[in-house]
Amino acid sequence: MNDDLKALIRTIPDFPKPGIQFRDITTLLLSPAGLATCVERMVAVVDGPVDLVAGIEARGFLFAAALAIPLQAGVVLIRKDGKLPGATIAEDYALEYGTDRIAIHADACAPGARVLLVDDLIATGGTARAAVRLLRKAGAVVTQAQFVVDLPDLGGAELLSAEDIAVAALVAFPGH
Amino acid sequence: MNDDLKALIRTIPDFPKPGIQFRDITTLLLSPAGLATCVERMVAVVDGPVDLVAGIEARGFLFAAALAIPLQAGVVLIRKDGKLPGATIAEDYALEYGTDRIAIHADACAPGARVLLVDDLIATGGTARAAVRLLRKAGAVVTQAQFVVDLPDLGGAELLSAEDIAVAALVAFPGH
Repeated sequence: MNDDLKALIRTIPDFPKPGIQFRDITTLLLSPAGLATCVERMVAVVDGPVDLVAGIEARGFLFAAALAIPLQAGVVLIRKDGKLPGATIAEDYALEYGTDRIAIHADACAPGARVLLVDDLIATGGTARAAVRLLRKAGAVVTQAQFVVDLPDLGGAELLSAEDIAVAALVAFPGH
Repeated sequence: MNDDLKALIRTIPDFPKPGIQFRDITTLLLSPAGLATCVERMVAVVDGPVDLVAGIEARGFLFAAALAIPLQAGVVLIRKDGKLPGATIAEDYALEYGTDRIAIHADACAPGARVLLVDDLIATGGTARAAVRLLRKAGAVVTQAQFVVDLPDLGGAELLSAEDIAVAALVAFPGH
């Protein structure tokens, strides 16, 4: 299933640090057929109408607008703190060492807006969970999230399921 | 011309610092019709076939894949130095104070690949010019660049024209 797409993802050993096998989607993006197929299959599994697609900076932005257009939705940006020009609400999340913070425009979501969360990859799920919490604080209804790549052994999909999010990914790299 | 899109862009005073009128496209992105119209009009003025759409991190990524799909092209990423996992080539460019550096995967462009450069906004054009130079170093043929917003008084479009790039933008804010 989706082996055609998986074959377009290359693995870079020891990036960003020794011992990490980095799953690099840039080679998939270079392929016109790979990119189009990727977006088409993500759109096909969206459950019901969505008002906004939320993209997580930076690689999530690649898929947010590409999905939003066939879904007839808008795009809402989830950015690193300090990057959005208007009034924001922010959420901290844990990194391996320390914490990081993402933000959303406080007025981005109409109350009850149905939001699909997208990113290129889910690993531990810390960023995605923080994104879900942010969107809900902003008034959105978030029930589904999609990724190109899942690293299932890192537990991110389970973390999101515990937040009542249906998670879909095109390809998985068990054992990462 | 494109006044419908211009009306969807909000202006945030004094961001990121006093005296700057920040042209904020996030309000345009929230509009399904605004986003779709934006992409449709950008696609309509592309000159001839393109093999790759180059998106500049981060907001350029929003438009890169959305344009690539109707153009039947792939996407190549231009990122801040240190973010791409494979072997890269990099280019420095001047900021108001100091310099910054962007990078591209060294193997991203097949020799002679026809590349369309996209970003959300052109101001002084420093980043876009560095991106053009990087793409050419990587073997690409770059003759056109598109932006949602042009701040013409800052001279970016002229800077790119001097590099033999045809520049198009949907909306302009003279006097910025």
